[in-house]
Amino acid sequence: MSTESVESRGGRIRLVVSYDGADFHGFARQKGLRTVQGVLEDTLSNLLGTFIEVHGSGRTDKGVHARAQVVHFDLPYGPPADRIVHVLSRRLPNDIIPISASQVDSTFHARFSVVRKTYRYHIFRGNLPDVFKYRFSWHVPEALDIAAMRRAGAHLVGEHDFTSFCAAAAPQEDKVRTIYELRIEESGEDLYLYCAGSGFLQYMVRIITGTLVDVGLGGMSAERLPDILAAKSREAAGRTAPAHGLCLWNVEYPIVYGGRVLDL
Amino acid sequence: MSTESVESRGGRIRLVVSYDGADFHGFARQKGLRTVQGVLEDTLSNLLGTFIEVHGSGRTDKGVHARAQVVHFDLPYGPPADRIVHVLSRRLPNDIIPISASQVDSTFHARFSVVRKTYRYHIFRGNLPDVFKYRFSWHVPEALDIAAMRRAGAHLVGEHDFTSFCAAAAPQEDKVRTIYELRIEESGEDLYLYCAGSGFLQYMVRIITGTLVDVGLGGMSAERLPDILAAKSREAAGRTAPAHGLCLWNVEYPIVYGGRVLDL
Repeated sequence: MSTESVESRGGRIRLVVSYDGADFHGFARQKGLRTVQGVLEDTLSNLLGTFIEVHGSGRTDKGVHARAQVVHFDLPYGPPADRIVHVLSRRLPNDIIPISASQVDSTFHARFSVVRKTYRYHIFRGNLPDVFKYRFSWHVPEALDIAAMRRAGAHLVGEHDFTSFCAAAAPQEDKVRTIYELRIEESGEDLYLYCAGSGFLQYMVRIITGTLVDVGLGGMSAERLPDILAAKSREAAGRTAPAHGLCLWNVEYPIVYGGRVLDL
Repeated sequence: MSTESVESRGGRIRLVVSYDGADFHGFARQKGLRTVQGVLEDTLSNLLGTFIEVHGSGRTDKGVHARAQVVHFDLPYGPPADRIVHVLSRRLPNDIIPISASQVDSTFHARFSVVRKTYRYHIFRGNLPDVFKYRFSWHVPEALDIAAMRRAGAHLVGEHDFTSFCAAAAPQEDKVRTIYELRIEESGEDLYLYCAGSGFLQYMVRIITGTLVDVGLGGMSAERLPDILAAKSREAAGRTAPAHGLCLWNVEYPIVYGGRVLDL
């Protein structure tokens, strides 16, 4: 048992966590598999002595990382919000790091209150593979036409039916989503694709990235993107980029929520 | 079996490899444990159908990484040197990456021919831990007096008996080594300690780093370093920095060896 005093606070907690997704079977709890939600729930439940359910802003797939995933959970009692990062950081494994915690109104919901999510996809362009980047990036040593990739990406910004850019088996009925921004940044041998939107379908950022890489490699014209959207078929788009290059970068909520100002 | 043609070349091969040491029990082969030497030997032996012994420039401890470890081995026959990187890169796991291979004279020895080795120790100074740096750096969020660390390090440059800076159980009789250079570079929240020398004793770079951090934190005076060297006792020095921040950065050999110019 913990030696830390358990105070009778409780209430809804909003927690921001980073994780290295390589050794997780994704975010969502799955029986018998190591998942981020599972580890968070086990850790909190062991701490409190009662089952604590954790709600994430959304799932991330097996192997996908998070710089700032947001979750919420309700505590019947327990440490105050300003102690939670300290308490959890001593109990969580090294591949999940709690960043910040705050007490929120019970109307706050990590998934339903989201107003904007940003993913970052990291492509490593070095001639040789780099063992220190392998875990967090996709190695594409061939020459990429970045200007063509940017032209292709511009066709995806806005509200569209993204059926062509999601797993054929994606569970959601409604495939209409809004991409607010799709930005490609170059930094030496690293290429970062930032994709911000209202929400994302399964594999959506990875299929967008894979299709843009197909364009960059010259295998597909940037001007075909409107037709690919219109086809509403996964077969129309390009390849799916590997999971390990993807990172949930940021999840945004209304700045003021239930009378409280939310911080990252 | 491989579909690649096996040519009757053979001879001594010098191979440079990078590895992410996190999931290895160090470099040196150990029965029943995953080691870098073990994986290289198994991969080459499976490829050639006969046991191939791999000789490294030196061991690295459990958890220590390598940007450019150098090994040599003798092939009875097999792919020419300029095909070896390609052949191995398809067979090695993702945490060992072959960088370059060349045919060398049989007088070349990965360990005995070394003229200079450089290690790099990475300290991450961010206020919060960073899950993406955890695997490759030591997180030291407290303020460090870098100038004091540099003064302390200067006392170690040159030829000294490094008994105080190696594992008490280190097997070598002779503890005299030469440090050619000890350089601390700052880059934002990252601090890199480069240590180049004729050779290193067990834990030597980690104890040097740990001691310099003790100095940086104010727990030890930089001017005590000559006394620590003179004490010839592990107890005199500071803590041992963790393995995962350490990386074998470079191994140098005579530029011309056996009539051949060696490349990295």
